[in-house]
Amino acid sequence: MKIIVDAMGGDYAPQEIIEGAILAKDELNIDIVLVGKENIIKEYLNKRVNDFEIVNADEVVTMYDKPILSFRKKKNSSINISLNLLKQEKGDAFVSCGNTGAILTASYFILQKISGVNRPTQSAIIPTLKGLMVLVDSGANIDANPTNIVEWATMAKIFIKLFTKKEKIQIGLLNIGEEEEKGSELTKESYKLLKDKFKDEFKGNMEGKDFLYGDYDVCVTDGFTGNVALKTLEGEATFFLNLIKNIFKKNLLTKISYLFIKNELINNLKKFDYEEYGGSPILGVNGIVIVGHGRSKRKSVKNAIKIASKSVDIDLLNNLKFEKY
Amino acid sequence: MKIIVDAMGGDYAPQEIIEGAILAKDELNIDIVLVGKENIIKEYLNKRVNDFEIVNADEVVTMYDKPILSFRKKKNSSINISLNLLKQEKGDAFVSCGNTGAILTASYFILQKISGVNRPTQSAIIPTLKGLMVLVDSGANIDANPTNIVEWATMAKIFIKLFTKKEKIQIGLLNIGEEEEKGSELTKESYKLLKDKFKDEFKGNMEGKDFLYGDYDVCVTDGFTGNVALKTLEGEATFFLNLIKNIFKKNLLTKISYLFIKNELINNLKKFDYEEYGGSPILGVNGIVIVGHGRSKRKSVKNAIKIASKSVDIDLLNNLKFEKY
Repeated sequence: MKIIVDAMGGDYAPQEIIEGAILAKDELNIDIVLVGKENIIKEYLNKRVNDFEIVNADEVVTMYDKPILSFRKKKNSSINISLNLLKQEKGDAFVSCGNTGAILTASYFILQKISGVNRPTQSAIIPTLKGLMVLVDSGANIDANPTNIVEWATMAKIFIKLFTKKEKIQIGLLNIGEEEEKGSELTKESYKLLKDKFKDEFKGNMEGKDFLYGDYDVCVTDGFTGNVALKTLEGEATFFLNLIKNIFKKNLLTKISYLFIKNELINNLKKFDYEEYGGSPILGVNGIVIVGHGRSKRKSVKNAIKIASKSVDIDLLNNLKFEKY
Repeated sequence: MKIIVDAMGGDYAPQEIIEGAILAKDELNIDIVLVGKENIIKEYLNKRVNDFEIVNADEVVTMYDKPILSFRKKKNSSINISLNLLKQEKGDAFVSCGNTGAILTASYFILQKISGVNRPTQSAIIPTLKGLMVLVDSGANIDANPTNIVEWATMAKIFIKLFTKKEKIQIGLLNIGEEEEKGSELTKESYKLLKDKFKDEFKGNMEGKDFLYGDYDVCVTDGFTGNVALKTLEGEATFFLNLIKNIFKKNLLTKISYLFIKNELINNLKKFDYEEYGGSPILGVNGIVIVGHGRSKRKSVKNAIKIASKSVDIDLLNNLKFEKY
C-alpha cells in the first residue's frame, strides 16, 4: 500500500507532517510518498531519507489562499500534484492537513465526483463513549437540500459500517428537537426522505446533547450547522481536558491526587482526545482523500495516515462507487 | 419585588418548582406568586402556604402541546394566566420552566413586542472561563435575516452589559471561519451590518471553539444554529462533568484521589454547571419573562427566579424599550 502525503499542508508543516509520516511508516509498514519542496523534505527526513519516496512540488497552498484560485494559479502546489498522483494510481490514498477548502476544490476538479453523487461531502470522525460516530457534512457544503442530506447519510453509513464493522448502523438527523415536525424546511423534508430510505436504521432527529453517548453512528446535517457543531464539540473537549489537567497541577495536594487517579483518568479521557482521530475522508470523489486538522502535530498526522490506510483496507472507494445514489 | 412563577411547567413540576420558589424566597426575600392548580400547590407548600400568594390556573400546558394551540385552547393555563398577571402589572417578572414554544408564543401575543422590535428572541446565558456570555437566538427563530441578527445583538448587548456591569462588550457572529467573507449569505450580510452598527464592539466572526474562553460577551446567530450549538455545549459539559465524577468513584485509589482534589475541582468546575444559571430572558417582549430548562430541579428553579429578580433590579425592560431598533 502506498499513501501520498502532503508534506507542506498544516500549521506545523513540514516538520510535524514529516515526523508523523515517519511514525506511520514505522507503525504500519506502508510506503509513503511525501509531496512538497524536495530539499526541505530531505533535510527534515535526515537519516530516514531513503525510506520515503519524494515528489517535488514547488508551490504551497497557504491557509489564506482562496480554494478556487489556489487550484487554478498554483498548478504545482503539493495539493494539486498529490491529487494528480492519486488520479494516476501512483498511490492508494492522499492525506493532507492543509487548507480544507483547497483540498476539497482540487479533489472535486482533479478526481471528479463518483457517478451518481451530486455533491461530495467532508466527513468528520467523532469519538463517543461507545466508539465512533461520523458527522456529514462538516463544513464543505454550506447549503444543502434534502437530496444531498440523504446522499451524505448514505455515504457516511457505508464508511462507518466498513470502518467499525458494526452490524446495525443508527442514523440521526441533527435538529433542534426530537419530534418529526421540528426544525427547518430542510430538516422536515429530509426527515421523510431518510425514513423512506433507511427505515429502522434512521433513528430520527438527534440534538447537540446526543453526540457523545454513542447512540448514533451517523449524524447528518448541512455543512454550516455541522461545522459549528463539530467545532463546538472539539473546542469544548479540548477546553475541559486542559481544565482538568490544570486543576491537577495546582498544588502539592492535587499533584498527589493525580498519582492515585492517573491510570483511570488516562484510560477514560484518552478516547475523547481529538489527536487520536487525525483526519476524516471526503466522501463522493473518485479517490480516498483524508483531510486532517490544520493544527495537527505528529501524532495526529500519523493517525490521519492510519485512517487513510484503513480506508484502503476496507476498499472504501469501490464500496462507495458500488452504491446507487 | 414580586415574581410570578409557573408552578406547573417543567419535567419536575410542581414539586421541584415549588421547592425552588421556597429556596428563592428565603434567599432573596422577595414576594412570589405561584400560578397553577391551587390545591396541589397548597399541598406541596405545606407549612409555608402563608408565605406565598397563589393564583389558581386549571389548565396545564404539557411539553407535547403545540404552542399556538395551547395558547388558544388552554385559556386558563398557568402560562396564560401568569402572563396576563404580568401584563396587568401584578408582578414584575415571570418565570417558567415549561414548554418553551408555548411560553414564547403566549408572551408574544399577550405582552406584545417592544416598539421597534421586529422579532423577539430567546437568549441563553452561557458560563465561560471569565464570566458569562449570552447567546441569541437560542431556538425561538429558526430562520433569520440580517436585520434580525443586528436587533438580537442589540438587545443581548443591553442585557449582558447591565447584568455583568462590564464596561466594554464584545460581540461575535457565530460562523464557520474567522474571515469576513466566510459563511452563508446570512452571515456575510450580517457581518457588514454588525460592523456598521457596533464598530469596535463587534469582534467579528467567532467559531464553536470560542464559546468557553470568555472572549465574547454576546454570540449572535440564527435560532437553528444557536439551538444546536447550545445543546452541544450544555450536553458536552454535562457529559464531561459526569465522566469525571464517575472516574473518581471507580475504586479505592480514585476515591482517595478525590479527597485531595475535591476543593479545587469543585471551585473550577462549578462555574460550568448549567444548574447555576437556571434560565434566560426572552428579549423583545413587553415584560420580563425568564425561560428555565425543562429539566430544572429546585436549584435551577431558584437560580431562574434569581435571574428574574436581577433583571428587574437592572431595569432591563425599560432599558430595552429605550433603545432605537
